[in-house]
Parts: sequence; C-alpha cells; structure tokens
Amino acid sequence: MSGYVRNLAQAARAAQAAIAAADASTRHALLEGMADRLLAGQDAILEANAGDLERARQGGAGKATLDRLALNPERVRGMAEALREVAAQADPLGEVSRSDVRPNGIRIERQRIPLGLVAMIYEARPNVTAEAAALCLKAGNAVLLRGGSEAAASNAAIAACLHAALRDAGLPEAAVSLVADTAREHVLELLQLTDLIDLAIPRGGESLIRFVAEHARVPVIKHYKGVCHLYVDRAADVDLALGLLVDGKASRPGVCNALETLLVHRDVADAFLPRALAALKARGVEVRGDAGVRAFDAALAPATEDDYAAEFLDLVIAAKLVAGLPEALAHIARFGSDHTEVIATADPAAADAFVRAVRSSAVMVNASSRFNDGGQLGLGAEIGISTTRLHAYGPMGVEALTIERFVVRGEGQVRHPESRAG
Amino acid sequence: MSGYVRNLAQAARAAQAAIAAADASTRHALLEGMADRLLAGQDAILEANAGDLERARQGGAGKATLDRLALNPERVRGMAEALREVAAQADPLGEVSRSDVRPNGIRIERQRIPLGLVAMIYEARPNVTAEAAALCLKAGNAVLLRGGSEAAASNAAIAACLHAALRDAGLPEAAVSLVADTAREHVLELLQLTDLIDLAIPRGGESLIRFVAEHARVPVIKHYKGVCHLYVDRAADVDLALGLLVDGKASRPGVCNALETLLVHRDVADAFLPRALAALKARGVEVRGDAGVRAFDAALAPATEDDYAAEFLDLVIAAKLVAGLPEALAHIARFGSDHTEVIATADPAAADAFVRAVRSSAVMVNASSRFNDGGQLGLGAEIGISTTRLHAYGPMGVEALTIERFVVRGEGQVRHPESRAG
Repeated sequence: MSGYVRNLAQAARAAQAAIAAADASTRHALLEGMADRLLAGQDAILEANAGDLERARQGGAGKATLDRLALNPERVRGMAEALREVAAQADPLGEVSRSDVRPNGIRIERQRIPLGLVAMIYEARPNVTAEAAALCLKAGNAVLLRGGSEAAASNAAIAACLHAALRDAGLPEAAVSLVADTAREHVLELLQLTDLIDLAIPRGGESLIRFVAEHARVPVIKHYKGVCHLYVDRAADVDLALGLLVDGKASRPGVCNALETLLVHRDVADAFLPRALAALKARGVEVRGDAGVRAFDAALAPATEDDYAAEFLDLVIAAKLVAGLPEALAHIARFGSDHTEVIATADPAAADAFVRAVRSSAVMVNASSRFNDGGQLGLGAEIGISTTRLHAYGPMGVEALTIERFVVRGEGQVRHPESRAG
Repeated sequence: MSGYVRNLAQAARAAQAAIAAADASTRHALLEGMADRLLAGQDAILEANAGDLERARQGGAGKATLDRLALNPERVRGMAEALREVAAQADPLGEVSRSDVRPNGIRIERQRIPLGLVAMIYEARPNVTAEAAALCLKAGNAVLLRGGSEAAASNAAIAACLHAALRDAGLPEAAVSLVADTAREHVLELLQLTDLIDLAIPRGGESLIRFVAEHARVPVIKHYKGVCHLYVDRAADVDLALGLLVDGKASRPGVCNALETLLVHRDVADAFLPRALAALKARGVEVRGDAGVRAFDAALAPATEDDYAAEFLDLVIAAKLVAGLPEALAHIARFGSDHTEVIATADPAAADAFVRAVRSSAVMVNASSRFNDGGQLGLGAEIGISTTRLHAYGPMGVEALTIERFVVRGEGQVRHPESRAG
C-alpha cells in the first residue's frame, strides 16, 4: 500500500467536521456556489473534456462510453441545475424524527447525523463528480471521488470548480477529494480503510461493482444491474400498457431502469401482443420470445434463459406469455434483480397482490419503470440506485447519506436508584 | 463447503415469504404464542441448560461465560416477557412513511418491507436465541441462528419451543432455523451466502465480530465494543454526576453500555473527585488515573493509553482531568468507540456543544450510559447495538430489521410523452 489514498482519506475525514458543523444556510449557499462555479468554469471543463474524448477515441472506446463521457454546454448546465435541486432539498441534519418521554422522565430523540466520509467509485461519467459531491456535502459528509480514468481531465476540471466554491464558503477543499491517480491498486487500498471510510458506493458496470464487493472491507451499498419487468395483466388497459412498454424499452435503452423483459397474461395476448410487437419493431427493438410470443411472429428469435437474466442495455427485449400473476411473480423472483418491476392492470386486487409479492426497490402500478430515478421520485438527484436491501433501497438522495442516532436528555436518571446515593 | 448451512438458509429463505405474507395480528399472535411455549417448556429448557453448564464447567469456562450461559425460572420468564414486549410493538410492515403526488400525477409512497433473511451469529447467551427470533419474525424476516457451542443444548430446547409456536400459528418452522452444528467452517460458509442472506449480525466479543467482518461477503452490521465516557463538566451538579458515575460503572460492569473512562473538568475536580473516588472505592472499583487524578489519591495506578482504549467490562475505570470541553471531545474522538458518551452539566450551551461534536450512537445529557439499551429506549428489545454508521446506529429494534422501498401508482404516466402513441 502506497498510502496515497490513506493520506487523501485522512485529509477528507478531517475536513468533514467543518462540513458537519456548517449550518443549513451555509451548506445551501455552498451548493449554489458550486453551481455558479461550474457555469463560470464551463470553458475549462469542456476543454479538458475534449482532451479526454480524444484520448478515449484513440484508445478505441465504444460509442456508449464516449456518450457517457462527452460534455457540452447543455450538459454542464444540467450539472449546475442538478446541484441547485440538491441545494433546494430540505436540510436533513439535526432533524428530530421522534421525541418522546419515557416513564422515568428521560426524553429520547432520534437525530440525523452525517455518515462521515463517503467514497464514490464510478466510471467515465463526469456529471457524477459534481452530483455525488453535492449530495454528500448537503448531508454533512466529506467525499472521496474515484472516477474512471477516461474522465480524469474532466473530473479534475470539475473538482477545481467545486474547490473554488468551498474556498468561497470558507470551507476546506479536502471535503471533496479526487483520487486523481486512477491506478487500480489505489482502489484496493481505499476499500481497506475501515478506520476512515464509512461507506463506499460503487456505481457503474457489473464488473466494477463485483470488484468492489469482493475486495471491500469498508461497508458497501451495491448498485447492481436492472433487469426490469413489465407484467401486462389480463385486466390491463392495452393502450396504457403499450405506452409503458415503449417508454420503458425504447425511450432510453442504455439505462438501468429500462425494461428488459415483457410478461404478458395469455388472456390479453391477442389484444396486446400484435400491437406491442409492431410498436417495438417500429422503434428498432429486437424481440426474443418464448413459444407463445413467437406464435404471433414466427420471425422472432427464441428467448433463452440467458435472455431472461440479461440486462441488455440495448434495443432488445425478452418476451413471454404467462398463465397468470403467479407465473409472472415466479419469473420475476427467479430472474429479477430487485431493481424495478411494473404491472399494467385496471384490477386493484391484482395491483395489490403484485406490490405485496414483488420485493424490488421500486414497484410501479400503471407507471413507467423509467420513473425509478432520484429526480423523478422527488429526491432532487441521486448518488445511485441501491439494490442492497440495507440502509437504502432504490434511489439514494440526501437523506440516504445520513443516519439516525439517539440523544437522551435527563435530570440525572439512573438504571439503579441506589446508584444515586453516590 | 459442505452445503450444510446453504440448505438451512434456502429453507429459511423459502419460509420467509409466509412470514412476510402473514398479517400483523398473525405475527402478533405468533410472538405471544412463542412466549407461552417458552414458559410451558421451561423444565426442558432448564434441564438442557444444566447440561450445557456442566459441560462448560468441565471445559473450564470462566465466571462471566457461566453467568451469561446460566438460565433459571426468572430468566426464562424474562425471555417470555421480552417476547411479549416485542409483540406489543407497532407493526412496521406496510407502513407508508411518505406519500406525495408529483406534478405529473404519479403518487409516490415509501413502504416498509422486511429485509428477508437475517443471520444472527452470537455467543453463549441463550436469551438471544428467543429475542432475535422474535424481532426478526415481527419484522417479517426469517432468521438463521448460530449461537455459541457452549449453549447448544439450551438453544435447541428454546428453538423447539419457538418451532411449536410457529406450528400452532400454521407458519413454517424453517422461518427460525438453528445452525445446530456449531463447527466454525459452517460460519465461514454462512458468511459467503450472498444470494440467500440479506444481513449478518455478529453479537459478542471483539474477536467474534472481527472474524465475521473479515470473512463476510454478505452485508454485516457490526456491534463493536463500548468504550463509554462520562464527561463531568465545570457546570455539573456534583450529586447528579456521582449518580451517573456509580450507575454507569458499578451497576453492571460487564455490559457494553457501562462506563470505562471518566473525564473531569479541572474546575470541578476539588468538589467532585474526592467524593467520586470514595464512591468508586466503596464499590470495589479500581481507578487508574492521570497525574491530575492521582494528585487526589497517590495510591492510584497510573492510566496508560491502553487503559484509555480498553473496554474493561470489569470493576475498573480510567480517569483523567481535562482543561475543558475541547480536550474532553478530543479524548473521546481519539479513544471512543462510537457507542455511548455522557455529559453531566447544568449548562445548556455545553450540553449542545457536546451533542453536536460527539458522533456516537447514543449521547446522554445528564442521564446514565446504561440507558443505551433497546428496552430502555422504548424499542421493546434489541437485536444488538450497532456501532456501524449505516442502516442502523445504536440499539436495533423491529424497525431496524426492515427497509423502505418505493411504490409508484399512476394512470399510465411515461417519461417521454411520445411513447404514448404506442
């Protein structure tokens, strides 16, 4: 271990006390200042990003990677907007969620405090650098940012803007610490720092998340793949279901809340499937079906078990006819990833049974899977979407970066009265 | 891997669905039934416990171990009482903590669901077997119980009572699964079952917890030692502070919420320390002091850095004079274990500064450290006291064994309106 990351983490941890001690209005002004500094630094950010893009192209990066990496004035404005939305969120610190007096007169309060130091490990998405920093600071945390090497120059330029805003607010720059040297050995070192890091959040492809999960000694909240299902119930409104299908699969296939599998109740197949297959075909979506689906279009490729387990992140969908809700639930239980499941139905009993039986982080009744997103759910932004059923489940906003503890106020109460004699 | 624990975990996970599906009154009745079955099975439990005690004595177990292991009619009644208290807690499942409508008309609810399968890894405390099972079942979880080998017969007898109650309620016995073979290799296997176990809770000595933390691939909430501090402020009421000191150190020295270090503001030392040292001496407590404290009693042993870091769990306490609140806070930050800290003061400003600066799971103002306990804080019982600032911090009751997820209800809303064309 070189100690490179330990030194960064120690500085960040030391700086966290100042962030936690800053009052709500100071942290609000800090985030607004970060947004202003990002806009003011746009030229430098775009220039750095152009260099990253050029190096990535020379390195033979794929289209998807280049798209995630690319910044432009609109995307920089989007980053600044996201920061202002986080700034506008209710301040979570010091909030007392419960206060009651026990028979012995002690008053018990639950109080929100920051987690401490959060380590964000992500890929070539420069916007995560700004948004993760904003969410962590809003919650009183310091953050250690380790982005993908392809975005190194972009992240450095963004971090420079964030540091300027911290200086403007009279707060320590180290509260946002960038792991500039992206050598993997430093990630390994980071994942062992149990005395300094309270939480590590890996965000990106499955291989990155598995790497972190396998090597981490620090607590980790995983953000695994989204194998999201749409179940079209026998009682579904066909037009409504078509909208959910097209929006879920075709509006942005590369994201984790996109649909990957369509389950259709056989009683509604005649009314729904022909129109569904036509709508998908019209949008260039390849359908892989079971025998029941292929009966509607012999040209379709058969769906394999691998297809049912796959997060295509592309214009591909697996489709299957089911005999009813129980078969749909069994399929989701077997192949789902606890991310997002959708039911289209006009039958409240079917909707309730679906909500009860599905244990995913988000369950949608007659609404698109694409709403499983921090901004769409009212969190302002998200640091990721947890598929770990611990601490946070689903999109993680500001509150998910805090924890409740106990504050007890008394007038000398003791467990054993005889202790009072002193 | 023998697969022994995997088979147990699979059965428990399968059984969990039935517990989660049971309504609140069924789970309430189940816990009352468990209490009844424990009382009815008292003779068998005590006979099994007598065997465990005999084997432990022959094995040369220490007094503390034997005390934790020993059951008697009163302790069995206490177990049954704890189960009834857990039964009486508000039901956490299905509770909707937040519900609001977004501008696009989708209704967003936060809903509590069970974690799933919880693995409890503990030492020779038979009462944990009953209480952990009750807390997990109340929250709709299944539980895998791996207790200490010294308590094997006692745990089996208790589990038999719990299984009878599950049968009475028409629920699967496997929801409470005992890892009867306590070979350590099975703990290692258990800690790798990421596909089956949602949370592992180690409860016991530091070596057990470190072992679990080092080998776990499943999520773990650690329950480390309690190095609890009492800071007697310059503005403290001396009699009140004496009560907190005696209660915190002498009422039950072997527990994690007992005091281990006393920090005294030098301005109150003349009024407080002579009486404090006398009160501790009268209760057989050995005091290890810094130079300032030893100035009040030259016979005291000097306190070393190891003493300041130690969880004595015995009638020993480290004591130190401090120049003021900042020095006390620095000492706690360096030697504390994030468990419980206490301030005795009549000065609200000092109390607030202490609460703000201390980041422990429980901070007590003019109240005993011994109140950091699930029962005392109104949780009915506790599955442990988390010192991990993630998911739960401090005593973990029923709610800490659940997680909130998102339920979205719409009328066909989509992210991209053009999707509606279908």
